[in-house]
Amino acid sequence: MKTIGYAALQSDTPLVPFSFERRPLRDNDVSIEILYSGVCHSDLHQTRNDWQEWGATVYPCIPGHEIIGRVTEIGPNVRHINIGQMVAVGTIIDSCQECDQCRRHEEQMCREFPTVTYNGRDRISGEITYGGYSKHIVVREEFVLNLPAGLDPARAAPLLCAGITVYSPLRTWNVGPGSRVGVIGIGGLGHLAVRLAAGLGAEVTVITRSEDKAAEAHKLGAEHVLLSSSSQAMKAAASSFDVIIDTIPSPHDASPYVELLDVEGALVIVGNLGKMAEFSTLPLILGRRRITGSPSGGIAETQEMLDFCGRKGILPECEIIPMQQINHAFERMERGDVKYRFVIDMSSLALSETPS
Amino acid sequence: MKTIGYAALQSDTPLVPFSFERRPLRDNDVSIEILYSGVCHSDLHQTRNDWQEWGATVYPCIPGHEIIGRVTEIGPNVRHINIGQMVAVGTIIDSCQECDQCRRHEEQMCREFPTVTYNGRDRISGEITYGGYSKHIVVREEFVLNLPAGLDPARAAPLLCAGITVYSPLRTWNVGPGSRVGVIGIGGLGHLAVRLAAGLGAEVTVITRSEDKAAEAHKLGAEHVLLSSSSQAMKAAASSFDVIIDTIPSPHDASPYVELLDVEGALVIVGNLGKMAEFSTLPLILGRRRITGSPSGGIAETQEMLDFCGRKGILPECEIIPMQQINHAFERMERGDVKYRFVIDMSSLALSETPS
Repeated sequence: MKTIGYAALQSDTPLVPFSFERRPLRDNDVSIEILYSGVCHSDLHQTRNDWQEWGATVYPCIPGHEIIGRVTEIGPNVRHINIGQMVAVGTIIDSCQECDQCRRHEEQMCREFPTVTYNGRDRISGEITYGGYSKHIVVREEFVLNLPAGLDPARAAPLLCAGITVYSPLRTWNVGPGSRVGVIGIGGLGHLAVRLAAGLGAEVTVITRSEDKAAEAHKLGAEHVLLSSSSQAMKAAASSFDVIIDTIPSPHDASPYVELLDVEGALVIVGNLGKMAEFSTLPLILGRRRITGSPSGGIAETQEMLDFCGRKGILPECEIIPMQQINHAFERMERGDVKYRFVIDMSSLALSETPS
Repeated sequence: MKTIGYAALQSDTPLVPFSFERRPLRDNDVSIEILYSGVCHSDLHQTRNDWQEWGATVYPCIPGHEIIGRVTEIGPNVRHINIGQMVAVGTIIDSCQECDQCRRHEEQMCREFPTVTYNGRDRISGEITYGGYSKHIVVREEFVLNLPAGLDPARAAPLLCAGITVYSPLRTWNVGPGSRVGVIGIGGLGHLAVRLAAGLGAEVTVITRSEDKAAEAHKLGAEHVLLSSSSQAMKAAASSFDVIIDTIPSPHDASPYVELLDVEGALVIVGNLGKMAEFSTLPLILGRRRITGSPSGGIAETQEMLDFCGRKGILPECEIIPMQQINHAFERMERGDVKYRFVIDMSSLALSETPS
């Protein structure tokens, strides 16, 4: 099927309209008309080839892995997805389906590495995958999620990456009523972490450097705000968290946050894909604390999160933009000028838009 | 009771004979004639005041927290310890006994901080505690361990710190048959980690930079040796360990070892009490791996370890020295010239030795 999207043609030029073909449906494929596509920091990094050390960007690159759409066609073997259904697609669109990780529904940790939604390689054809900044996508049934009726399709999009990235560690570390959860930073990931942790019944504290974030934190559902710039406040809060979700996107010393953890507590890094600074082993040793990370979630857990958000009415704060503003949105995202997530309204992109 | 020990009188002078009083027995106290005292790296650091940032050394300082002895007297309320019994004392000799950590038998993580065996402060009198480099010690019953009949008293001493320090994380991380355990470094801690993990039924790999350690590693009970200096070998061993015990005593980059861990595996730092170098978050995030540490063990777990070692005949390799050689032993320990642990034969110290 001929379709159109916005692509980076090289690392240092703006995204431009780009015409391409989506593959003909395989027997277990679902064809989706994309209605909304979330804008993730990964999109920016990947199109600019910032991650060369673990996989260079192949151009043209069509980013986007927070996809909401409507099913337009299904292959003959598709069982659980119907034409007209509202669906979602996240960061992975295939995996081996046979390894121990796939069998325990952790396809994001597939031993053969999952096929990512863009800049990946299709497991059958070997073609480079193109993401959600486009009018259509074709995905095998097992990686197509149901969008619960109660969720606003536009605002639901960021749940597919930002949402599951913070929901998965909350579930891994068994967060629920009685849990004391800290969230460092309230950006795209952080504000969803606050809402999801609060939704799970936890006592949530936003840990931030700026006092002026307090009102916002409370509005999002945090019971407390901890000023990390106050050494007195940090000292008073020592050993008082079970789990801290660290969304800081740059290298930093984890030690001051590790000291906030209670015995056997976990600092979960989700924001900084790269180097971390020197740290002290003392709080790890004395309290058997952990520094860990979390890699998005499996398909079953992502569906669980969507259903949970549907029941609880949990959604991110979004700014809806037309496709044509994506380059401006990237610039604003770099400056941190978004509350808290951009979502592209794909109806803004006509199939007839002139490709470059 | 008047007794004698070897004390550091200041940070930069050798240990010398030192006469002092042990407290009269309280109702729940046990008086012990010390027969053997292990020599721990901590003894060296504490006497030299290397740990000022978390507690300066008070002089005179009598180190030693790997104690084996015979009970000579008991207070009227002592229930489970008898005169003549062979007993052991480790790194802690008191705690609040009331907090959540004490109640779950993790006295080493007591909320009020446990009373350490030397350079601590007695909870009742406020006096500075003096350790095992001495002829006698008085300890409340709850912190006196039974030495199983099968264990050689001389060689058992290092189990009380080195042993429990590596046994506790093996138990925390549920090591048993089927577990794939890595041990980085085979010194005092490492060689015991190999024996204990093998004793628990795990498949043990020694991870070392020097090829010439291979024979020794196998003799200790390791099934495999992984050369960390070979990038090819390290790559081939990626994702193949459940737990790695990291005994490296100096700052280092944890990332190459974290990559050896399988999904959700744990790198447990026990050797380096201080700064760690920069590390990469990628292996933590992609595999939900953990960097953690471990703080010795509680009294119940230490007794469990002693009983386990008694049943399995697990003991460290020791070099027995007279008390008078302690300063030379410190020098050799600093050079890494010991296989693998010094133990002081306290019979070498006469009560009449001339104190300085």
